[in-house]
Amino acid sequence: MNYSIIRYILCRVLEFQALFLSLPCIAAVVYQEQEGWAYAAVLVCCLAAGVVGKLKKPKSKVFYAKEGFVTVSLSWILLSLTGALPLYLSGEFPSYTDALFETISGLTTTGASILPDVEALSQCNLFWRSFTHWIGGMGVLVLILAILPLAGGYNMHLMRAESPGPTVGKLVPRVKYTARNLYKMYVFLTVIQIVLLLVTGMSPFESMTLSFGTAGTGGFGVLNSSIGSYPMVSQAVITVFMILFGINFNVYYLLWRKKPMQALHHEEMRYYLGIIAAAVLLITMNIKGGFHSLLDAFHHAAFQVASIITTTGYSTADFNQWPEFSKFVLVLLMFVGACAGSTGGGIKVSRVVIMLKLVKNELSYLIHPKRVRQIHFENHVVNKDVLRSISVFFIAYAVIYGFSVLLISLDELDFTTNFTAVAATLNNIGPGLGQVGPAANFAVYSQPAKYVLMFDMLAGRLELFPLLLLFTPATWKRR
Amino acid sequence: MNYSIIRYILCRVLEFQALFLSLPCIAAVVYQEQEGWAYAAVLVCCLAAGVVGKLKKPKSKVFYAKEGFVTVSLSWILLSLTGALPLYLSGEFPSYTDALFETISGLTTTGASILPDVEALSQCNLFWRSFTHWIGGMGVLVLILAILPLAGGYNMHLMRAESPGPTVGKLVPRVKYTARNLYKMYVFLTVIQIVLLLVTGMSPFESMTLSFGTAGTGGFGVLNSSIGSYPMVSQAVITVFMILFGINFNVYYLLWRKKPMQALHHEEMRYYLGIIAAAVLLITMNIKGGFHSLLDAFHHAAFQVASIITTTGYSTADFNQWPEFSKFVLVLLMFVGACAGSTGGGIKVSRVVIMLKLVKNELSYLIHPKRVRQIHFENHVVNKDVLRSISVFFIAYAVIYGFSVLLISLDELDFTTNFTAVAATLNNIGPGLGQVGPAANFAVYSQPAKYVLMFDMLAGRLELFPLLLLFTPATWKRR
Repeated sequence: MNYSIIRYILCRVLEFQALFLSLPCIAAVVYQEQEGWAYAAVLVCCLAAGVVGKLKKPKSKVFYAKEGFVTVSLSWILLSLTGALPLYLSGEFPSYTDALFETISGLTTTGASILPDVEALSQCNLFWRSFTHWIGGMGVLVLILAILPLAGGYNMHLMRAESPGPTVGKLVPRVKYTARNLYKMYVFLTVIQIVLLLVTGMSPFESMTLSFGTAGTGGFGVLNSSIGSYPMVSQAVITVFMILFGINFNVYYLLWRKKPMQALHHEEMRYYLGIIAAAVLLITMNIKGGFHSLLDAFHHAAFQVASIITTTGYSTADFNQWPEFSKFVLVLLMFVGACAGSTGGGIKVSRVVIMLKLVKNELSYLIHPKRVRQIHFENHVVNKDVLRSISVFFIAYAVIYGFSVLLISLDELDFTTNFTAVAATLNNIGPGLGQVGPAANFAVYSQPAKYVLMFDMLAGRLELFPLLLLFTPATWKRR
Repeated sequence: MNYSIIRYILCRVLEFQALFLSLPCIAAVVYQEQEGWAYAAVLVCCLAAGVVGKLKKPKSKVFYAKEGFVTVSLSWILLSLTGALPLYLSGEFPSYTDALFETISGLTTTGASILPDVEALSQCNLFWRSFTHWIGGMGVLVLILAILPLAGGYNMHLMRAESPGPTVGKLVPRVKYTARNLYKMYVFLTVIQIVLLLVTGMSPFESMTLSFGTAGTGGFGVLNSSIGSYPMVSQAVITVFMILFGINFNVYYLLWRKKPMQALHHEEMRYYLGIIAAAVLLITMNIKGGFHSLLDAFHHAAFQVASIITTTGYSTADFNQWPEFSKFVLVLLMFVGACAGSTGGGIKVSRVVIMLKLVKNELSYLIHPKRVRQIHFENHVVNKDVLRSISVFFIAYAVIYGFSVLLISLDELDFTTNFTAVAATLNNIGPGLGQVGPAANFAVYSQPAKYVLMFDMLAGRLELFPLLLLFTPATWKRR
C-alpha cells in the first residue's frame, strides 16, 4: 500500500471540501445567519490541513486498483466527517452522530433524514444539505480529476472506484476529458432544471436546492411535506428531471456528439424507460380509487415511480398509505435502481438486465448443453470478468443486506420498517415504509443502528467493494 | 424432446402412487374410517392408468438432461394432482385447490397448511398428509431408480434433476446403488426415530406421522398445537432428528463405510452445525426473559432453530411473538436452509458457503489482481460450471422471490406476511411470520395467491430450473 500518495490525494480532497463549504458561507451572508461562522471556521481548518498536509510530496507514484479503492473510500469518509462539523456546530442537530448521519445521507445522495422538522433549519444548513447531494451525485474524485492536472496511471483507478455500474464507460480515451465532459453535462442539466423551476414560480432558493437534490438523485427537501405542497407543474418538472438524471450519461454524450439514433438505441435506457412505464401503469391502476381523477393518480404514480427508481426519494404523497401491491412495486424498484453511469443508486438497470439474461442463458444451456453461450448487452459480448463481478456484487449485496437488517433488528422496530430502512439506505433512496415511510424519519433508530445505516449508505454509493476492502487486513500491508 | 419415454416413466410414477396410496387405505381399515374408499378408488384409477399407459413401449431411448428435468417436474405435478384427489373426495377440504395446496405442501416437504383445525381430519387423511412428506423428502424418482431395473443413461439425469444441492454426490459409481443406499439410510433413521418417540410415550400413530414429518423435513403435525403439547423429552428427540435429517447423507454413508474421521471433517456439516450453534446461542440470549429458566429458553430456541434451518417447520412456541431480533435470525435461517444431499430445502449451506467464499475471493482479487484464484470446498477445487450455476441459481431465486411477493401482494395482506409466506413456501418450511405465523395458516390467501405459493413450493423443492423449463417454449420442440 502506497500510503504517501493516498495522504496527498486526501489533502487535495480537503482543499476541495473548503471550496464546497464556501457556498453555504455565501448563503449565510445572503440570509444574514450567524450559523455561517461554523462553516467559515471548518472551511479554514480544511484548507489549512489540506495545504499543510500536501507540502511533503509523495515518495512513490505507484498506484494500483487497491490504492484507488482505498483512496475513494477514505475520501468519502473524510468528506462526511468534516461536512458534518458545521451542522453540529450550528447547534441545530441533537448530536454529532445525527449530523454525521445527515451528511452521509446527503453525500451518498440517499436523502434519509433524522430531522422531524426540516423547516426549523437555517437557510445555510438547508443549502449545505442539498448541495452535498450535488457533490455526491457525480462524485468528488471525478470532479478533482476533471479540474486538476493529476497525470499518471491512477486516474482510471479513481474513476472506476467512484463511478457506479458494472463497467466504467469512458466517453473519450483520456479519463480527464471524460470527467470534464460528465461535469459539463451535469452542470448543464442542473441549470436547465433551476431555470424551469423558477419559471413555474418557485423561489430561487428552492429552485436551486431542489435541483441539487434532483440532479444528485438525493431527495432532501426544504419543506416538511417534501415536494407535496408545490404546484403540480413544478412537481411534473421534477418528475421529468428525476427520470433524466437516472439515465446513463453516455446517452447525453451521444446526443451531444450528434448521434441521436445511437442514443435512442441505448439498451440500458430502453429497459429503464420500459420499467418506469410498466410500474407507472400498474400503480396508477392500483391507486386510482383513492384519487379524484385518473390524471391525478397518474401524476402521483409517475412522480413516485421516478423518485424511487432513480433513488431520489422525494415524495408528493404518503405512499406508505397506498395499497400493498403498489407499495411492493415501489420496493422492487428500490432494488432495481437507476442506470449505471447516472447519478442514481441501487443495483442498476444494466446489472439487473444482465442477471436476467444469465438466467435465460442457463435455461437454454440446460436444453442445449453443447451450444456456445454468450451474453450480449449494448451490442457487445459481455466478458466473463464482468459477469463474475456482477454475480459476486449481487451476492455481497445480499449478505450485507441480511446482516444490516439483523443488526438493526436489535432496536425492536417491526420487520417492514427494518427491511425497508436497509433498502432505503443501501440503495441510497431515503424513505422506506412503516416507521421510516415518507411521512416519518430515521430518528426512531438508536445510535448504533444509525451507524449500521451510515455504513449501508456509503457501501451503497461506492458499490460495496471499496468499503469492504477497508475491513480486509491484506489491504493494509505495505508492499 | 422424447415424449414416449416421458410417458413411460410417468406411468411408472402412477403405479408407485398406487403403492403409496395403499398405506392410507390400511390406516382407514385400522381406524375403520369410510374415507378409505376415496383412497381405494384413486388407487385403482392410478394403477389402471399406469398399467394401460405403459403397454406401448417407448420408441426411442434417447434421454438427455432436458428430458430428465421435464420428467421430474411432470412427475411431481402428477403426484400432486392425483394425491390431492382422496383429500378432496373425503369432503374434509373446502375445495380441490385447497386439497392440492395441502398435497403439494406435503410432497415438497413444506408443511404449510390451509386448515385452521387439523384435529378435525380423519386419521387416514392425517396419515396421508404426513406420509407425503416422507415420499417427497428423499424423492420419488430416486425411489423408482432404487427399486426398478431402469438401465440406460437416464438414471443420472433423473437423479440430478430431483436431488437437492449444487452437485449430486454419487455415493457409489452406479446410480441405482446410490439410490438404494440413500433409501436404506433414510428408512433406518426413520425407524430409529419412531422407536425413540414410542419410548418417550407417544402413540404409534403419532410416532409414525411425526417421524415421517421429521425425516422428510416436512412439518405437518397431527395436533393444532403442532409439537407444543408433547412432553419436553419427545420434543428433544424431534429436535435431534430434525438436525440429523438436515445433514448431507454422504456423512452417514461415510460412517456406514466406517470412515468416521472423514465424516467428522465434512465441511458442509461443520458449517451447518456451526450456524445452528450460533443461532441457538443468539436466540436463547434474546428470548430468555420470556421463559421460566435459561434451560427452557434454550430448549425452545434449539427446537425452533432446528425446525427452521432444516426447513421442517414444526413449532413448540409461537415464535411470531418473539422479539424482532430472534424472528429475523429465524428468517435468515429460512434462506440458508439445510445441507445439500439432505431432505431439507432452502438455498443450502454449501451454496451459501461457496457464495461467501466467492465474495472473499473477489476482495483478494481486487488486492492482488494477478494471483491465481480458486475456490476450495470439501477438499476440492470447485469447478467453474458449478460456480456459475450457483450464482445463476441465486439470481433466479431472487427473481422468483420478487415476482411471487408482488403477485400475492394483490391480496392486500401486510408486507411481513407476504414476504415470509414466500420465504416459507419457496424454502419449503411451512410457517412464516405475521398472518402466516406458526399459530396461523395459509387460508388467509385467495385462490390465485395459493397457486402462486404452490408454484413456489414445487420450484423450491425441485430447485427452480426443472420447473422453469416447463415454461420455456424451446423445451417442447421435438428433435
